[in-house]
Amino acid sequence: MTDAPVIRRTLPSGPWTIVAPKRSTRPQPAAKPSEDPTHCHFCPGSEHETEPEVYALRAADTKPDSPGWRIRVVPNKFPALVSDAGDPGRPQSLYSEIGAIGIHEVIIETPDHDRALAEMRPDEIADVLAVYRARLQAASRRRYVRSVAVFRNEGRAAGASQLHAHAQLVGLPIVPARLQAEIDAAVDYRRRRKRCVSCDAIKRELKKGSGVIAENAEFVAFACFSPRFPYETWILPKAHHHDFRLVPLKHLCALADVLGAVLKALRAALDPFPYNLVLQTAPVQMSIRAQGAFHWRLEVVPRLTTGSGFELGSGVFIVSLSPEDAARRLREAIAEHREAKRVRR
Amino acid sequence: MTDAPVIRRTLPSGPWTIVAPKRSTRPQPAAKPSEDPTHCHFCPGSEHETEPEVYALRAADTKPDSPGWRIRVVPNKFPALVSDAGDPGRPQSLYSEIGAIGIHEVIIETPDHDRALAEMRPDEIADVLAVYRARLQAASRRRYVRSVAVFRNEGRAAGASQLHAHAQLVGLPIVPARLQAEIDAAVDYRRRRKRCVSCDAIKRELKKGSGVIAENAEFVAFACFSPRFPYETWILPKAHHHDFRLVPLKHLCALADVLGAVLKALRAALDPFPYNLVLQTAPVQMSIRAQGAFHWRLEVVPRLTTGSGFELGSGVFIVSLSPEDAARRLREAIAEHREAKRVRR
Repeated sequence: MTDAPVIRRTLPSGPWTIVAPKRSTRPQPAAKPSEDPTHCHFCPGSEHETEPEVYALRAADTKPDSPGWRIRVVPNKFPALVSDAGDPGRPQSLYSEIGAIGIHEVIIETPDHDRALAEMRPDEIADVLAVYRARLQAASRRRYVRSVAVFRNEGRAAGASQLHAHAQLVGLPIVPARLQAEIDAAVDYRRRRKRCVSCDAIKRELKKGSGVIAENAEFVAFACFSPRFPYETWILPKAHHHDFRLVPLKHLCALADVLGAVLKALRAALDPFPYNLVLQTAPVQMSIRAQGAFHWRLEVVPRLTTGSGFELGSGVFIVSLSPEDAARRLREAIAEHREAKRVRR
Repeated sequence: MTDAPVIRRTLPSGPWTIVAPKRSTRPQPAAKPSEDPTHCHFCPGSEHETEPEVYALRAADTKPDSPGWRIRVVPNKFPALVSDAGDPGRPQSLYSEIGAIGIHEVIIETPDHDRALAEMRPDEIADVLAVYRARLQAASRRRYVRSVAVFRNEGRAAGASQLHAHAQLVGLPIVPARLQAEIDAAVDYRRRRKRCVSCDAIKRELKKGSGVIAENAEFVAFACFSPRFPYETWILPKAHHHDFRLVPLKHLCALADVLGAVLKALRAALDPFPYNLVLQTAPVQMSIRAQGAFHWRLEVVPRLTTGSGFELGSGVFIVSLSPEDAARRLREAIAEHREAKRVRR
């Protein structure tokens, strides 16, 4: 094979893998990166060290690829997919290999090297979410992109190779098997019960209460009933909604409130707090039927433990902290944070 | 909830999770465990620190739970599943919770604290595989066990909490969704093509050659065409066979030869070499049709990289080393090992 990335699957039901040999040259985090922040490629003043920016929130009188930005989006310098190589081709059932044609972007969420998403104000988080939405919309318009993954890695245990706060966006020429399976199961559930399965889950969580971590009029955050890792938290819009691209700005502000509260609570409860943030949203094209059945969500997944051969082999997870206990601890952290704020006033 | 472990699933298509609160009390590895090997619970002389043994290969004149064993099997002291609590119940489509009724055993593979599986002679590895088979057979006879996972974790990055060489066996009251999906897809492939999908994969690997790492008359090891992690290696019987429980002893010796060569090659190529070994085999009950379609395999999965939010969210993996390059490096390591052995003679 050449060095062009490919997407492969061995068995018909197996997982897809992107084989991207050029990514092996990407930089790894220094042992104690805070000691030498001048070498961060994502900091203001180092704009020439990244690919040219494709989007930014920046002061009106500043030029692209110069300081003055609040949020900056650049193509990943070591992309898992490439955008310029034509048709990816069609999957086969056995030993499938298609071109890894797509998009791989980095969303630098703040100019401040030491500012974590959990430390941002709700209005700053809302700006970040609005940029996710804008880039998701842009990626969806690309010819071969069939689904888009938006995610953040924070901390090495969560797979981060850069410490400066950033998210990533990957536009894929496939719909991942797991997302398709969830959509199919949701459509099947709706056919039988006439309701969205996630709407039913939300109703259940709100009624039971013991898993709820935070909520407002539009969103609810609860400890996932079957977490893959301890403290896994799901945030969903209370009203049925299938596509993050279509979320109105007002709702992004409400989402930022709940996400900020969850991140602050996790940060207070867990030290260190490596985690992934994952957006599960509709693929680029979706039937009307699937739109009524599938419900988008954000997943916040702390990475305190390492999956073993059991998880890898069976796809079944083991956690030793119940979601109900996790939710209780996080509710307490939120209450303490409010109390501390009240006292300071 | 009480402290009894349960198996849960949130959405109809979602992953299962075992919630086992008591496991949180299990010991973690010391920072430098080699400094104080007397504290290993798995070493000879510490038999009273484990649960009473349920199986062992030991000298004829020695008593259970005393030294004199070569391989020793004990119930996991911090089990993810319990065996004494009756019917696990039936899964629901939404917010399913059944009892985590099953088996969780530890197979201590050698009395020697410092001996890794990769360092063992083929006849020693064959003994270890024979014990896997014996315990798999025993677990399959338990009332509520529907599938059995056999796996090893070596090194912290692979999820190991003990350093002394050991495998684990988990008997589950469910068939994991991933295994069932593979079986269904294999049955579908066989219906259309009249052949086993894995037999076709083996034929393809042997013809292409660039992925093959080691082989003998009965088994072939090749770099997985779509690895989840760099250097992921699959070992399969060349002739169609669905169930590790039924592998004859002669074939276990042939498997030990190939597995030993693969582990030695990986150990030579990778330092450190944290890895998981995973057995993918038939569930306890399987239709004749599925028996003809599903092919058991061993997966050797080095854990040099950490899955990020992309893998966690999409189920799609990214590797930056091609399987063909991995196979070439491992073939070279095997050739060097042979050369070194020849020179020493």
